[in-house]
Amino acid sequence: MTTAEATKLLEKFRARGVSRAKVLQAFQAAPAVDLGFAQVDTHRALRKGFPEVIFGEGKTPAQVLKITQKLLQREQRVLITRVSPDHARMLRKRNKYAVHHQLARCVTIDKQPLPKRAGTIAVVCAGTSDLPVAEEASVTAEIMGNRVLRIADVGVAGLHRLLGRVAELQSANVLIVVAGMEGALPSVVAGLVSKPVIAVPSSVGYGASFGGLAALLAMLNSCASGVTVVNIDNGFGAGYAASQINALASAE
Amino acid sequence: MTTAEATKLLEKFRARGVSRAKVLQAFQAAPAVDLGFAQVDTHRALRKGFPEVIFGEGKTPAQVLKITQKLLQREQRVLITRVSPDHARMLRKRNKYAVHHQLARCVTIDKQPLPKRAGTIAVVCAGTSDLPVAEEASVTAEIMGNRVLRIADVGVAGLHRLLGRVAELQSANVLIVVAGMEGALPSVVAGLVSKPVIAVPSSVGYGASFGGLAALLAMLNSCASGVTVVNIDNGFGAGYAASQINALASAE
Amino acid sequence: MTTAEATKLLEKFRARGVSRAKVLQAFQAAPAVDLGFAQVDTHRALRKGFPEVIFGEGKTPAQVLKITQKLLQREQRVLITRVSPDHARMLRKRNKYAVHHQLARCVTIDKQPLPKRAGTIAVVCAGTSDLPVAEEASVTAEIMGNRVLRIADVGVAGLHRLLGRVAELQSANVLIVVAGMEGALPSVVAGLVSKPVIAVPSSVGYGASFGGLAALLAMLNSCASGVTVVNIDNGFGAGYAASQINALASAE
Amino acid sequence: MTTAEATKLLEKFRARGVSRAKVLQAFQAAPAVDLGFAQVDTHRALRKGFPEVIFGEGKTPAQVLKITQKLLQREQRVLITRVSPDHARMLRKRNKYAVHHQLARCVTIDKQPLPKRAGTIAVVCAGTSDLPVAEEASVTAEIMGNRVLRIADVGVAGLHRLLGRVAELQSANVLIVVAGMEGALPSVVAGLVSKPVIAVPSSVGYGASFGGLAALLAMLNSCASGVTVVNIDNGFGAGYAASQINALASAE
Amino acid sequence: MTTAEATKLLEKFRARGVSRAKVLQAFQAAPAVDLGFAQVDTHRALRKGFPEVIFGEGKTPAQVLKITQKLLQREQRVLITRVSPDHARMLRKRNKYAVHHQLARCVTIDKQPLPKRAGTIAVVCAGTSDLPVAEEASVTAEIMGNRVLRIADVGVAGLHRLLGRVAELQSANVLIVVAGMEGALPSVVAGLVSKPVIAVPSSVGYGASFGGLAALLAMLNSCASGVTVVNIDNGFGAGYAASQINALASAE
Amino acid sequence: MTTAEATKLLEKFRARGVSRAKVLQAFQAAPAVDLGFAQVDTHRALRKGFPEVIFGEGKTPAQVLKITQKLLQREQRVLITRVSPDHARMLRKRNKYAVHHQLARCVTIDKQPLPKRAGTIAVVCAGTSDLPVAEEASVTAEIMGNRVLRIADVGVAGLHRLLGRVAELQSANVLIVVAGMEGALPSVVAGLVSKPVIAVPSSVGYGASFGGLAALLAMLNSCASGVTVVNIDNGFGAGYAASQINALASAE
Amino acid sequence: MTTAEATKLLEKFRARGVSRAKVLQAFQAAPAVDLGFAQVDTHRALRKGFPEVIFGEGKTPAQVLKITQKLLQREQRVLITRVSPDHARMLRKRNKYAVHHQLARCVTIDKQPLPKRAGTIAVVCAGTSDLPVAEEASVTAEIMGNRVLRIADVGVAGLHRLLGRVAELQSANVLIVVAGMEGALPSVVAGLVSKPVIAVPSSVGYGASFGGLAALLAMLNSCASGVTVVNIDNGFGAGYAASQINALASAE
Amino acid sequence: MTTAEATKLLEKFRARGVSRAKVLQAFQAAPAVDLGFAQVDTHRALRKGFPEVIFGEGKTPAQVLKITQKLLQREQRVLITRVSPDHARMLRKRNKYAVHHQLARCVTIDKQPLPKRAGTIAVVCAGTSDLPVAEEASVTAEIMGNRVLRIADVGVAGLHRLLGRVAELQSANVLIVVAGMEGALPSVVAGLVSKPVIAVPSSVGYGASFGGLAALLAMLNSCASGVTVVNIDNGFGAGYAASQINALASAE
Repeated sequence: MTTAEATKLLEKFRARGVSRAKVLQAFQAAPAVDLGFAQVDTHRALRKGFPEVIFGEGKTPAQVLKITQKLLQREQRVLITRVSPDHARMLRKRNKYAVHHQLARCVTIDKQPLPKRAGTIAVVCAGTSDLPVAEEASVTAEIMGNRVLRIADVGVAGLHRLLGRVAELQSANVLIVVAGMEGALPSVVAGLVSKPVIAVPSSVGYGASFGGLAALLAMLNSCASGVTVVNIDNGFGAGYAASQINALASAE
Repeated sequence: MTTAEATKLLEKFRARGVSRAKVLQAFQAAPAVDLGFAQVDTHRALRKGFPEVIFGEGKTPAQVLKITQKLLQREQRVLITRVSPDHARMLRKRNKYAVHHQLARCVTIDKQPLPKRAGTIAVVCAGTSDLPVAEEASVTAEIMGNRVLRIADVGVAGLHRLLGRVAELQSANVLIVVAGMEGALPSVVAGLVSKPVIAVPSSVGYGASFGGLAALLAMLNSCASGVTVVNIDNGFGAGYAASQINALASAE
Repeated sequence: MTTAEATKLLEKFRARGVSRAKVLQAFQAAPAVDLGFAQVDTHRALRKGFPEVIFGEGKTPAQVLKITQKLLQREQRVLITRVSPDHARMLRKRNKYAVHHQLARCVTIDKQPLPKRAGTIAVVCAGTSDLPVAEEASVTAEIMGNRVLRIADVGVAGLHRLLGRVAELQSANVLIVVAGMEGALPSVVAGLVSKPVIAVPSSVGYGASFGGLAALLAMLNSCASGVTVVNIDNGFGAGYAASQINALASAE
Repeated sequence: MTTAEATKLLEKFRARGVSRAKVLQAFQAAPAVDLGFAQVDTHRALRKGFPEVIFGEGKTPAQVLKITQKLLQREQRVLITRVSPDHARMLRKRNKYAVHHQLARCVTIDKQPLPKRAGTIAVVCAGTSDLPVAEEASVTAEIMGNRVLRIADVGVAGLHRLLGRVAELQSANVLIVVAGMEGALPSVVAGLVSKPVIAVPSSVGYGASFGGLAALLAMLNSCASGVTVVNIDNGFGAGYAASQINALASAE
Repeated sequence: MTTAEATKLLEKFRARGVSRAKVLQAFQAAPAVDLGFAQVDTHRALRKGFPEVIFGEGKTPAQVLKITQKLLQREQRVLITRVSPDHARMLRKRNKYAVHHQLARCVTIDKQPLPKRAGTIAVVCAGTSDLPVAEEASVTAEIMGNRVLRIADVGVAGLHRLLGRVAELQSANVLIVVAGMEGALPSVVAGLVSKPVIAVPSSVGYGASFGGLAALLAMLNSCASGVTVVNIDNGFGAGYAASQINALASAE
Repeated sequence: MTTAEATKLLEKFRARGVSRAKVLQAFQAAPAVDLGFAQVDTHRALRKGFPEVIFGEGKTPAQVLKITQKLLQREQRVLITRVSPDHARMLRKRNKYAVHHQLARCVTIDKQPLPKRAGTIAVVCAGTSDLPVAEEASVTAEIMGNRVLRIADVGVAGLHRLLGRVAELQSANVLIVVAGMEGALPSVVAGLVSKPVIAVPSSVGYGASFGGLAALLAMLNSCASGVTVVNIDNGFGAGYAASQINALASAE
Repeated sequence: MTTAEATKLLEKFRARGVSRAKVLQAFQAAPAVDLGFAQVDTHRALRKGFPEVIFGEGKTPAQVLKITQKLLQREQRVLITRVSPDHARMLRKRNKYAVHHQLARCVTIDKQPLPKRAGTIAVVCAGTSDLPVAEEASVTAEIMGNRVLRIADVGVAGLHRLLGRVAELQSANVLIVVAGMEGALPSVVAGLVSKPVIAVPSSVGYGASFGGLAALLAMLNSCASGVTVVNIDNGFGAGYAASQINALASAE
Repeated sequence: MTTAEATKLLEKFRARGVSRAKVLQAFQAAPAVDLGFAQVDTHRALRKGFPEVIFGEGKTPAQVLKITQKLLQREQRVLITRVSPDHARMLRKRNKYAVHHQLARCVTIDKQPLPKRAGTIAVVCAGTSDLPVAEEASVTAEIMGNRVLRIADVGVAGLHRLLGRVAELQSANVLIVVAGMEGALPSVVAGLVSKPVIAVPSSVGYGASFGGLAALLAMLNSCASGVTVVNIDNGFGAGYAASQINALASAE
């Protein structure tokens, strides 16, 4: 039942063309989705400015393009994650706003970039092999209107490099820490700051890393308070949650 | 090297009672901890008001009491988690501020409760058996100066109860969602709100729940954006991280 | 918004005491739960006659009694699963309809037993150690209005005993097959009948049975078509699903 | 021993051309398979109309063709699952009834489609990446003579889309719910309907989804009654079991 | 120290050309390997006629050829398992006795086949996809001098086919039973015979078969006495152990 | 249909008191179990002398006693495994033949011990903590009529003790090797003998032994040919299989 | 054949009381164990001073006492690990040298303590709950003649405490680092020193620590070079290996 | 703050150009990294001669070359592990010192080889398929200045070959033992020597070896004292730790 239809029904009721019981029944029987949709719409409105996201992996370039174009009819910006070079090529050929973030394996299309929030999100990683996941997090956070401070190459086995950047770490509102192998970095970072830390296990490693399981378990068992965890290699998820937190901090 | 000692050294240097090389060496050799401590102290200051936490499990009542009393010499409040009835009895006998939160298996001692922040933390759970974990999160959040909104008995298999509380869910700055069994509740809640959701898998269940593993994996794989996860049954960790986020939101 | 309130609103609208916009808004803003509840109520009505179920494990006898009595104010029958002898004793002392099914670890309270459906549910198990799970399934199916045919001691290592009961197996509308150890029985049974088979892995076994995991995996990998699986030791779940299927078969 | 042979033996016995002991021995020694076959034949007859199924994966197109043609000598219809494009090409070139269901990765050959049963099987899935599994279930159910209602894109993170289709969900006799990632959809659906729900974990996901394990465990631990589970990605198994249940419902 | 050297030493001792202490020391210091070798040699002699085995996987055709030719300088027969078509081509081109067992992925080179033992080894499998593993077992057993009875396509979901071959099963001295998926066949077979059953889990399957783990666990938990298990897909190991048992039975 | 009944039917047929069709139908309709039973009976006869076995764990002393007495009405001997002291006390009080094997956690009741077979079964274990499993294997093998050679305390970390008993190891027809921890002993032993080795992983160990999983995996991956494996701690299963092999070797 | 016997044999040979062939045969036929023993004896001699170790868990106090006393007939010192208070009481009552190390759950009996080696073994742990494992390592290292430097309460979440003790860490020849939870400490320590680090995962933790598995995996995946790992909670093993390394360093 | 800057500051202070408070503050505020760096530098100096290591896997040849050349500006030697043939070709073309160790999958560039230490590191492996891991360990140890003794083809299933090399094993200061499959070799070797043994599980195997997990667990559960473990296939890690230990032994 659309608003138009509901209007018509109410007028008919007032004009005594339909019984009260019928009206009540109509509203009660109204598919939850209509009311729900309204609710969701409001909700959507609250989230305005957040990009729609397309997971590129396992889709053909043509499929990705089609979904992207449909979304762009009503959205100012779209984020496409886990893209192949073919995806990127197709999107850039067809859309002048398309930017290919190679390391992050993302394409962003942002017709009207959001103004940046006040606070900063730090994205920290240890090794160069964690960079793709860290970059996915950074690109996600940026398109959602956040300033991102990238801090790379600060593994726990060389503490001095990490300690040298404590001030920067402490300046962020929220920190995303990506680590593979033994996954210790989030615990160490969380011990140095008072802000929330989102840990992202990466699947980097071999042998008993079991595709990131070792790092995942380590992060879940962090001895430092204030650490929460997302799925293995889920840079997007970390960037999204960090943006939500930063939005709170920025008094929106 | 304390500040007093450093002062003395510098004066001696100016008075030419000690060579420049010696002074430089002294500062360079200064145990990192001294400088570090300063750093940490500042850091501590920033975290002021956060309770010290004692993990009671596996400690004798006497041990817990001793640690508690030591902490209370310099802290206004202490949180003791995973307490047995014996722990609680001993603590209450010896400290008039001690409150035993039975369901949460916590004791709090708060000589001067913190003023409450503006925003709210919602603590949501599905079944009555998730309540102990949810309460541990709530008690943690409360002693850290947060208002907590408890929403229980809203499992995914009875959506109407959950939907009936959407407005309350949406009013919170950050949500803690505890669930055992299939661990689906955080995904559903995160789809209804625009704020960060911290998922806590509980070990409630039997058979192939494998002590909370099923719920943990489900939460890590949440299809809803904005969900981060803490360890199984780690209500304290969720409460702590939520408080950090709420503190940000409350513009501290 | 209750029906009474909605009625009042509509009459006020007809009497022009409130604008159409306000009415529309009220209905759209109506907490989903109200409409949802109606929906659920209808839904409930459809499920009428199905017992309410209480999971006894981890609750005190007093708690179980309290929940039971509350349910009995509006229900004709209650099933309490995973009861201890203490639960049973308390319930039987306080309710004359309470029956303790020792092997099944259940108590049933059925003030007005449902008439039995036409079709039969067969509950099959191999060893005596699977009996508690099989009985939980049987008791569940029976209180939900089904005839149950119990077939025990027909393991795959002694096929003749199983083959001797093929006619009985084939007479059932739906079959519940409980097995621990290698979990092979459901595959063999499903090869002998044309009706749906619900497999229940039991935690019976030792060593590499890993608490029922071996049987669970075997059942999920069944080479026989028509086998679906429930959680380890979940006799209740199997009985419930079987009853749903038998209800369909009995043209309700 | 065929019936013809048995007849001959009995006549010879009556004509005293063979001793009673020999006859008894012959019948007792008759390979179980002969009698068994009779039994199975009857059994087969009961299952008439059910398609033979060929698992294409790991077989060459030539092998699949050969098995298919052999089956078609005595069957009206054949279902070939997990086909490659090469399988499909070969089969379509050689059989005019062959239909390639690309998304479902199936070929059906149905010389004389079965009349449709009265009831409906709903096949529900959340994301587009679950579609191949959902379609395998749908194609299986359809060739077995069932009407299928496809409901896609109704994930738990966007409840309104799901709630908008509750009436359709409730209209089905049995529901197949496919979900990857956190596997929460079956629990939510089962809470909205009173009919049996067959949950199919899909291997869609990454990181800690461990190839569908996360969804599988979630479904086995469903808090909603009436959910049974099949193997990861086993659309065929779900379609087959659902057809068995719908056949019961349709009073066959 | 060879026998010749020891002889020389002893004579020198008797001739007082060397002290007793030196002789004692020499014998005590004699590398264990010399004495050990003798022991092993005897041991080897007992195993005479057993084929040397080369695991082809991961070796180049040239490497396999080289090892093969070296072995054939002192052996009458060689078994090469897990060969690629390239391995087979190379071996057949260079050795007229080389036979490629395609299904078994083996090449055998047997210059002088062993006489066959009296007893029989039955190699049983359920589906056509288990055939490669079953054939590896068969080829191994045959080159070691055993008669092999192949029984295929007798899965537990179609018992009549299995029951029709009970007499054959019971005629074997030892049975190798290969099964993937739920791995139930060894339990059923072991219930029908009184001879040792060697179960081989195959990696055939998908989803929660986890590469043969489901079948492996099922077989380890077999409810039938007399079942032992080898590694997943280890047809060679089963054939070898079965040959050892059959050799015992044949009174060698 | 018993033999007597079949005889009667055939005579009636010959006397033309019943039609041929009826006779054929009777034989074809004969419940599989009857013929099956005959088959199994013959089969039973072959296994005569093998003890019936009762798994004591999880049964009350009264239950065990009852089953034991029933079995003793038709059997000369019974083996009860995994008994508690209470089981043993009860059985010894009520049966003069009952012997409690404390270490093996077994009771044997053997009214007429079987004559010993010619060959020997060696039961080898490394540590004293593997003894209970080894003894369960030994007691099983002994009651089934085998001579058992016990070789304890020969772990792989002290090779000299193992090497000192090579001759004894080589004298056995079949060897049972029990090992916990790293489970290496079966590989080493199998390299020293030419007879079948049955490996039994024991649950002895701590930390990453995961209840015997480490040893189980090691044994399945043995680099020595001729090793087969039974379930963790399954001494009975190993003893049973070894007895079957030894029976073959002893030309029964 | 003992040395005495070999001497006699050789003299007899020189006196021509026995043939050369007999002598050769005697030496060759000498059970490997004898020569092996000699070999082991030499080997033993090299290890002199190393304590014999008894694993107390699962043994009665009487059994432990008996083994202890037997060992003390030929050893100067004995280490008994995993003792209960009962073990300790019994041992102390019966042996005046017995010392009960409560935290380490060890008893040492050292009649003549070894002189201490020059170098130091550092035993580092993060939390008080890791202390029992750390103490087991320390007590083991001490009784083997090493100086032990205990460094506790230096977790990675409070780096300043760790950094404050860098000089001490760097002074050790070898470091044992015990950690539960996320197991990050060994990586951090190994990055600060140039000496070998032996990591010991402790089973301390809850939820997804899975009894120490999380820490174990983290340590195996350490990003710092020079880290090796022992079993979960295996303080003894770490102490033993560290002593071996320190012995090397101390030029023994 | 560099030393130069600190010097300047102190002189300014003495010259009263800056207050004492300012100087104190400057030293206290000095980024930890500066002091830390000094510390690390000293530390670096201690480790001098140790090669820098590049993990080649997942990097392009150009990337590897670039990092290599940068390192060679300040280092005498570089080790690149896990190289592809393309990596090797590129490096050898551009650097005359580059040596490609094919089996070890390493390239070493050593402009001025370190003098060899006195002691020896033994690198032991069982099968030819473990050779790549063993060679990675050997090449690592060699470039770090150690003599390496390679002992291959000494699996536990053929003890005589191992026993024949006991003297060589005992001559080493530290032993690296690589094993796949059941991973038993380190336990056996550690029982024969008194020096530290570093066990390396290799991923060689199939079926239930689960990519080296079986060997890893076996090694962690070794019954022999003195065994520590590194990650699956981590030859580099073993070589590095062994070099650290050998350096200690060689009194550096």
